[in-house]
Amino acid sequence: MLLLRRVFFLLSSPSPRAPLAEPLLLRRPPKTLAPTARQLVAMAAPAPSAGGAGTMSRDAFRAAVTNTLERRLFFVPSFKIYGGVAGLYDYGPPGCAVKANVLAFWRQHFVLEEGMLEVDCPCVTPEVVLKASGHVDKFTDLMVKDEKTGNCYRADHLLKDFCKDKLEKDHTLSQKMLEEYNRVLAILDDLSAEQLGAKIKEYGIVAPDTKNPLSDPYPFNLMFQTSIGPSGLSPGYMRPETAQGIFVNFKDLYYYNGNKLPFAAAQIGQAFRNEISPRQGLLRVREFTLAEIEHFVDPEDKSHPKFGDVSDLEFLMFPREDQMAGRSATRLKLRNAVSEGTVNNETLGYFIGRVYLFLTQLGIDKDRLRFRQHLPNEMAHYAADCWDAEIECSYGWIECVGIADRSAFDLRAHSDKSGEKLEAHEKFSEPREVEKLVITPSKKELGLAFKGNQKMVLESLEAMTETEALDMKAVLESKGEVEFKVCTLGKDVTIKKNMVSINIEKKKEHQRKFTPSVIEPSFGIGRIIYCLFEHCFYQRPGKTEDEQLNIFRFPPLVAPIKCTVFPLVKLEKFEVVAKKISKALTAAGISHIIDMTGNTIGKRYARTDEIGVPLAITVDNTTSVTVRDRDSKDQIRVEVDEVASVVKEVTDGQSTWADIMWRYPAHTTSAADEEEAEP
Amino acid sequence: MLLLRRVFFLLSSPSPRAPLAEPLLLRRPPKTLAPTARQLVAMAAPAPSAGGAGTMSRDAFRAAVTNTLERRLFFVPSFKIYGGVAGLYDYGPPGCAVKANVLAFWRQHFVLEEGMLEVDCPCVTPEVVLKASGHVDKFTDLMVKDEKTGNCYRADHLLKDFCKDKLEKDHTLSQKMLEEYNRVLAILDDLSAEQLGAKIKEYGIVAPDTKNPLSDPYPFNLMFQTSIGPSGLSPGYMRPETAQGIFVNFKDLYYYNGNKLPFAAAQIGQAFRNEISPRQGLLRVREFTLAEIEHFVDPEDKSHPKFGDVSDLEFLMFPREDQMAGRSATRLKLRNAVSEGTVNNETLGYFIGRVYLFLTQLGIDKDRLRFRQHLPNEMAHYAADCWDAEIECSYGWIECVGIADRSAFDLRAHSDKSGEKLEAHEKFSEPREVEKLVITPSKKELGLAFKGNQKMVLESLEAMTETEALDMKAVLESKGEVEFKVCTLGKDVTIKKNMVSINIEKKKEHQRKFTPSVIEPSFGIGRIIYCLFEHCFYQRPGKTEDEQLNIFRFPPLVAPIKCTVFPLVKLEKFEVVAKKISKALTAAGISHIIDMTGNTIGKRYARTDEIGVPLAITVDNTTSVTVRDRDSKDQIRVEVDEVASVVKEVTDGQSTWADIMWRYPAHTTSAADEEEAEP
Repeated sequence: MLLLRRVFFLLSSPSPRAPLAEPLLLRRPPKTLAPTARQLVAMAAPAPSAGGAGTMSRDAFRAAVTNTLERRLFFVPSFKIYGGVAGLYDYGPPGCAVKANVLAFWRQHFVLEEGMLEVDCPCVTPEVVLKASGHVDKFTDLMVKDEKTGNCYRADHLLKDFCKDKLEKDHTLSQKMLEEYNRVLAILDDLSAEQLGAKIKEYGIVAPDTKNPLSDPYPFNLMFQTSIGPSGLSPGYMRPETAQGIFVNFKDLYYYNGNKLPFAAAQIGQAFRNEISPRQGLLRVREFTLAEIEHFVDPEDKSHPKFGDVSDLEFLMFPREDQMAGRSATRLKLRNAVSEGTVNNETLGYFIGRVYLFLTQLGIDKDRLRFRQHLPNEMAHYAADCWDAEIECSYGWIECVGIADRSAFDLRAHSDKSGEKLEAHEKFSEPREVEKLVITPSKKELGLAFKGNQKMVLESLEAMTETEALDMKAVLESKGEVEFKVCTLGKDVTIKKNMVSINIEKKKEHQRKFTPSVIEPSFGIGRIIYCLFEHCFYQRPGKTEDEQLNIFRFPPLVAPIKCTVFPLVKLEKFEVVAKKISKALTAAGISHIIDMTGNTIGKRYARTDEIGVPLAITVDNTTSVTVRDRDSKDQIRVEVDEVASVVKEVTDGQSTWADIMWRYPAHTTSAADEEEAEP
Repeated sequence: MLLLRRVFFLLSSPSPRAPLAEPLLLRRPPKTLAPTARQLVAMAAPAPSAGGAGTMSRDAFRAAVTNTLERRLFFVPSFKIYGGVAGLYDYGPPGCAVKANVLAFWRQHFVLEEGMLEVDCPCVTPEVVLKASGHVDKFTDLMVKDEKTGNCYRADHLLKDFCKDKLEKDHTLSQKMLEEYNRVLAILDDLSAEQLGAKIKEYGIVAPDTKNPLSDPYPFNLMFQTSIGPSGLSPGYMRPETAQGIFVNFKDLYYYNGNKLPFAAAQIGQAFRNEISPRQGLLRVREFTLAEIEHFVDPEDKSHPKFGDVSDLEFLMFPREDQMAGRSATRLKLRNAVSEGTVNNETLGYFIGRVYLFLTQLGIDKDRLRFRQHLPNEMAHYAADCWDAEIECSYGWIECVGIADRSAFDLRAHSDKSGEKLEAHEKFSEPREVEKLVITPSKKELGLAFKGNQKMVLESLEAMTETEALDMKAVLESKGEVEFKVCTLGKDVTIKKNMVSINIEKKKEHQRKFTPSVIEPSFGIGRIIYCLFEHCFYQRPGKTEDEQLNIFRFPPLVAPIKCTVFPLVKLEKFEVVAKKISKALTAAGISHIIDMTGNTIGKRYARTDEIGVPLAITVDNTTSVTVRDRDSKDQIRVEVDEVASVVKEVTDGQSTWADIMWRYPAHTTSAADEEEAEP
């Protein structure tokens, strides 16, 4: 369950962007409900549905997927010949092709269809930028060190593992301790360094590898630090997210968009987090690809003109209230979720809908995808609302996309730090008359009354809110004087009528200036791809009983290779036809491979299924060939000259295999066509 | 001229991968020729051809291009609101689209058409990998520090600037000093730290900003250093090139390719170089995108099956001999360049041809593109041959692609460091009988004769080359004994016939094992894009005499936006048609924008030309519309329902504008259609 919490950490990075450290604890709602709810959420997570894992255990299923992925070079640990580095992975050829397809579709679905402004900023980032964003001070995890060897551990991981271990293995636990360990697990993420340290001491937790004592927990900044230029005087970091590159360019982008709101900017790129101890394979890594959108909008108008395009969608949503009441996620119609206020506004709702379409079109199983709303204590104080697209895989429900209404926080932070105004303006078609509160202290009277303290009193008067000022005005008018607290003096002073004039004045305004709100959908591309691998993976029996064949049912959109071409047997006439078809496929822009090896056709099918190739062309004749569908194993006969365009029709998504089946004669399968696993 | 030398540094990184530091100096050919030749190369560089700069000076031309690029947000200095960081740039929306188009075409032209294995490795790289590649020890520039302020400078830059300044501005120079400064400029790149330091002292060069004295030059490593994990004990670097990620994966990739050679792996990704003082805008930056290919090949067979596809190409080549003789680049037919041995082998020649096609199809002017062979002193000792694709721009001839035959160097380096064998094997169809030299020292006799020195003598005997051993055998057989130098003893010893037997034996071998050679085309994507900007930029007079309009004549392939749609005037019926056309364009996958602003059509044309949009559709009627070509300004009338497919035909490259012009009625231009600069 705590995994859940730490999981969304990667994308929504609560430390700097939604600070959850000590000071905020005070402002949070009472905790009794939230943790319990979160515990229930975790319990309720169903096992992977039959389509994927069947009757296998989660661990066995994951082992089967990972084994296939590594063996077929979808991904491998980086720098393997040197022993590898935890949390760093390479995409091999098929993985790289899947990633390129996912990113191309992302660009099509978001950037092009929505007319977003794409930017491409460097990874190396000077300190000042990440100081403004809060990352330098708050992007930390709590760490403990083995006091003898210096080995490092995440403090919360050690405490979590200890409690889980006790709960699972110690059957003599008293009811009191059982409740205690459960309580600790529930509040783990909210513990301060001191509280974590105290628990570690209380339970006598030692370094897992050596049993040595541990240091007190202290914050470790998760950014990779470096130095820009040769002097050593300009610290820099590898960016922990791509968003800041967009915020610092707001002014230029707003101008580029004709000084009009709303508009969205987008960026795809590498991000870096120096995890203390990476776990969970591809899900928690030290370098990863993010695709982020910052949609800038007038805070007073968060409607979206295209909301109607997605409002009829219905999918699993998990509002805050349902989580806290211990209920499960339910299917909601997006229109209702927005109109009933479950989702804060139309624009946020629009992006939730677009993200749903994006993920399901990639091949994510819609029954293992839910949109979970952040609980009050997960959200930053400035955030208006926040939903995570969570995908269920063998590790549980994993946050893969965060969709947050971050209000004006980021632009304000950079505005303050840089001194550059990052704001939008709305010109009124005709001037508007507005009422404005005007507070005019009398310097002379204040000087006479307060002498050296004059300045502090004056500033406090000017800093009054509208309500405070109007209250003061009323008292002054009725009583002639009022007691007034001056914080900077730490005491009350008496303000008399002649010391300040407070008035409501009418003014004509020609425009309104404001800091735009930003709605931020942020995609962890590597996580989406890993979940996609799990959702697309299945096994079917081979020729013999024990033999299990591995298949990835990638949709053509993401399949690394769209089609393979096999000459049935090694004959020159078949190879000539195969090459002719290959040329036609290249001309049609279809990625494919020719397999001229002498392996049986069954073995070649198995190899091609294992990297998720949707269609296979077997050249068994010089005028017509067999086309086979990966999942149904159905085969049809198509003329040689026509085959490239048939393949293109299916892989471009204009037709489905079922459409095509109708139009061409079926080809009867012979025993030789059965798949065989490799020896 | 020295710029030239430093320029190719970025891609071919001579320090670690083609070390040019002290030790190698000894092995280089005499220098008298090379520097002179390089000087002549620089002199011969023509001014930008009329198409681009016209009669403008290089500086004025560059200012006009850069101004347009920054104003239209092709690129901007990164983190501008914080004052920016030298050597870091952001691509704004049109620049980002150009980059995405260039990379998509690269992937199509190389990865897909050649069936390359694409990989995607992390930027964060542990020290051991870059120790093996030589980067940790040798990827350096010589730096001097202002002794008071600590400001850093490239030592060679200061010396170069000093000499150039003297030559340009000091008209009282003696003939002797004139020759001296010219000589220093010519050999600058080959000077050691001590030699550079001595010259700086001799000339009394001081810090340019403060006139303070300077430190001695010392090497500064150009990699961004960081630390992996929390312990601080695992140093890492941001990769300075993507190639190493491919080399360390060789074994898996070779297996993936069915244990067959040749094959190529490719990678597109960010690389990082912490330049001491970045100059030249987009050409020398601290973070940039590389696209690299490593084509692994049997060193005994570097033929290429597809060489015939490119062998008839003819373009500017600049072989080593022509550079050293002070001649200019000449047009050579690729077939002849390979058959005459100018280009070392067919595979290298094939890639030169493919790179030529890639660059010219992008829009690089073929008359300002040349392939320059490395001079002997530019190449690493292990390299078989190396050619740079150089593109001429306002900064001179810039190396944008390096194409090197690096022999077995990189795989051997990682094999040695990691202990993992990175080699290929060729199975013989039938066993081959081979003759092998067998040297068998007699330990007993050597022991009796040399006692404690026995081991050194034995090792020296075993280390003999085939020629040395056969010579010894001959002498032993004729004279019974021979004098033999044992280096490790530092003296000669007498070897008698009974101390060693030397024989040629016949053996049957079933396969051959070898380290593959690698041919590496390495593309600096940012440099190519910058040169493309310059080659595509031109100006034409606007309505008034002084007004100059800026145009980028991007081919549709790279144009950031393919088409704009303008309603002629603000009328609902036109806007409806514009939206209908926009929908059809989206469905056809054509990136476009609608400009509904009330600006004159001339202003809207000017804005669209300035970001290089090839086609503009003006909606001036509800049944047919005007389509305008950016460069000719010709206009035709096309039916509304047909316009998307016409645009697609041109932007997909199936037809040219000239083809289309024939098929549709011309539209006569009215004065209102003339372009106007923005106020």
